[in-house]
Amino acid sequence: MITPWEVTDDVNYKNIMENFGIKGIEEAVAKLEEPHQFMNRGIIFGHRDFDKIADTINEEKKFAVVSGMMPSGKMHMGHKMVVDQLIYYQNLGAEIYIPIADLEAYWARDLSFETTKKLAIEEYIANYIALGLNPEKINVYLQSKNEGVKDLALRLAKRVNFTEMKSIYGFKNETNIGHIYAPLVQVADILHPQMVENEKLGITGNKSKVPVLVPVGIDQDPHIRLTRDIANRYKDFKFIPPASTYHRFMTGLLGGKMSSSKPETAIYLTDETTKSFKKKVMSCKTGGRETLEEQKEKGGMPEECVIYEICAYHFMNDKELKELYEDCKSGKLTCGTCKKQCYEKVSEFLTDLKEKRDNAMEVAQKILE
Amino acid sequence: MITPWEVTDDVNYKNIMENFGIKGIEEAVAKLEEPHQFMNRGIIFGHRDFDKIADTINEEKKFAVVSGMMPSGKMHMGHKMVVDQLIYYQNLGAEIYIPIADLEAYWARDLSFETTKKLAIEEYIANYIALGLNPEKINVYLQSKNEGVKDLALRLAKRVNFTEMKSIYGFKNETNIGHIYAPLVQVADILHPQMVENEKLGITGNKSKVPVLVPVGIDQDPHIRLTRDIANRYKDFKFIPPASTYHRFMTGLLGGKMSSSKPETAIYLTDETTKSFKKKVMSCKTGGRETLEEQKEKGGMPEECVIYEICAYHFMNDKELKELYEDCKSGKLTCGTCKKQCYEKVSEFLTDLKEKRDNAMEVAQKILE
Repeated sequence: MITPWEVTDDVNYKNIMENFGIKGIEEAVAKLEEPHQFMNRGIIFGHRDFDKIADTINEEKKFAVVSGMMPSGKMHMGHKMVVDQLIYYQNLGAEIYIPIADLEAYWARDLSFETTKKLAIEEYIANYIALGLNPEKINVYLQSKNEGVKDLALRLAKRVNFTEMKSIYGFKNETNIGHIYAPLVQVADILHPQMVENEKLGITGNKSKVPVLVPVGIDQDPHIRLTRDIANRYKDFKFIPPASTYHRFMTGLLGGKMSSSKPETAIYLTDETTKSFKKKVMSCKTGGRETLEEQKEKGGMPEECVIYEICAYHFMNDKELKELYEDCKSGKLTCGTCKKQCYEKVSEFLTDLKEKRDNAMEVAQKILE
Repeated sequence: MITPWEVTDDVNYKNIMENFGIKGIEEAVAKLEEPHQFMNRGIIFGHRDFDKIADTINEEKKFAVVSGMMPSGKMHMGHKMVVDQLIYYQNLGAEIYIPIADLEAYWARDLSFETTKKLAIEEYIANYIALGLNPEKINVYLQSKNEGVKDLALRLAKRVNFTEMKSIYGFKNETNIGHIYAPLVQVADILHPQMVENEKLGITGNKSKVPVLVPVGIDQDPHIRLTRDIANRYKDFKFIPPASTYHRFMTGLLGGKMSSSKPETAIYLTDETTKSFKKKVMSCKTGGRETLEEQKEKGGMPEECVIYEICAYHFMNDKELKELYEDCKSGKLTCGTCKKQCYEKVSEFLTDLKEKRDNAMEVAQKILE
């Protein structure tokens, strides 16, 4: 349950955290002067070594944030959440690295390098910039074109075996060798910025590296664990095992997961504010009661409401969100009115984003040149 | 059995050839104006598509020869045989490619890139040049530094799976991912020159490529088969499946295999002509009889003689070899005299090679820069 003032336990997430040693975010966040609202609202709920990143921020030292993209289909509001975090860290002075996983797309999804590149630029990078990421201060690259990353992956391949890859990623004997190799390119994506940043700062040789943060969903934790493990296996590189934060997934419009491949569940960043789009948003799952009378009497259930979640993730400051919560709980605000208000916010946001995206397209096209 | 005039069947080789579709070399060799003596003597005994290379030679068209090296230990007379073939093809106008398998050495033998590079230059390349390969007309490279080869390997990794690699190379689940990936870098080593040569000739796009020949020992055939298979899987590249020739291994001084890691079996190219070296050569296995009387009566057995083989591989023209064979068979030439004559040839060769190698060292040092 997401509120500006408390984090309700989510059993599922809590179990995973306990089993794998992910810490709750609260203590680390307390160190920050201006935490992101995702951190206060329990949307970012767990971490590994984020306390060290908080220290780095407070000491105004250099750090890097890595957030890979596998361009497949369209970006939706759940993806926006990741970009919002990148913008936050960019404003705190972090160096932002955005690898485009065209090698993995080729091996695992049979996408040509050309297709991936086009999609990355037009759908993803254009939106990243439109959402507010400063394109002049990001390091975007295609995996297939980054010699440093590719060479590091070749090195890392020495100390990982098939059994290990199989147990983490479920590979079979029929899996193609590229697909088996792909996670090592991703590990290199995460570790390589440490080398680049050290070099930029003029720190050469086997010195301790600039720390790296990877903000991910909880499903990516096995990959983070592997990366941290591998970092420790290559002592001579003096890697710092990357820090990570874990965020909740956005709920889809009909409950369940918001999914790129299911239009009825997602608000795409390129959705046009047509009648049918309005209908899609207005038909979403809310925390309303069976009848209007019941709702006025018992109040609504924002804990189960997709509209409330959309507002909490994307459109409200603490004061507004608290008001919404209380008005819903008291039965004062009914679902019809609330949905309409939310739709207007979404609609305004998408219209504005479209204009910004059109303006960003040229820069996006040039960013990989 | 090696003679200048006939090839005695070797059951073991013949079985392998029949099972895997390797052809006898005779017909293809008949096309050549000046075949290498290894071809006439049955030292090079089999091939795949070498007839097409013979046509290419006769048409004075471009072709390339690829011969990788995995620098481990010292070069011996068996290795010289490979270099002799490269020199032969270089003189026929072939472009010579010599990949140094430093990635494989790193993954499979735990050798550092620095160690492999040093060994490749000082022990291998210096000897290649000293033996007569023209250093100005060879393409030597470290796998780890060749972007074209590395990128091609990444592509090829898509259409080969773990089962296939396992069955060819005996990989286990505990094998490191680099080692599993290594054969694909070698396949890229063999296929990549086709792309480079086409480019040099100004042939762009999906045109048929310049043919490639890989001279190897029969133990390398599984790798050749995989390479030819993969070439066919990537139709859009229009690769020509590489041609190959197969040569016999040199027998060690004590019978059995000549091995880099067993000094008593090998004549190293860097052996100094000391007393103990002389003793090593003079103690080798010959085709002599139990007693001098028996030998004078029945004659010697050059078919089983290491000295005869050394002469046949490295030191005699057809006339000399025929004379040696007949003098041995008739009992006229005894082993003591014969060994001494051979030792003198070897000794003279090594002394001369040492001087040439010293002169070649500077060029060898620069060739990878």
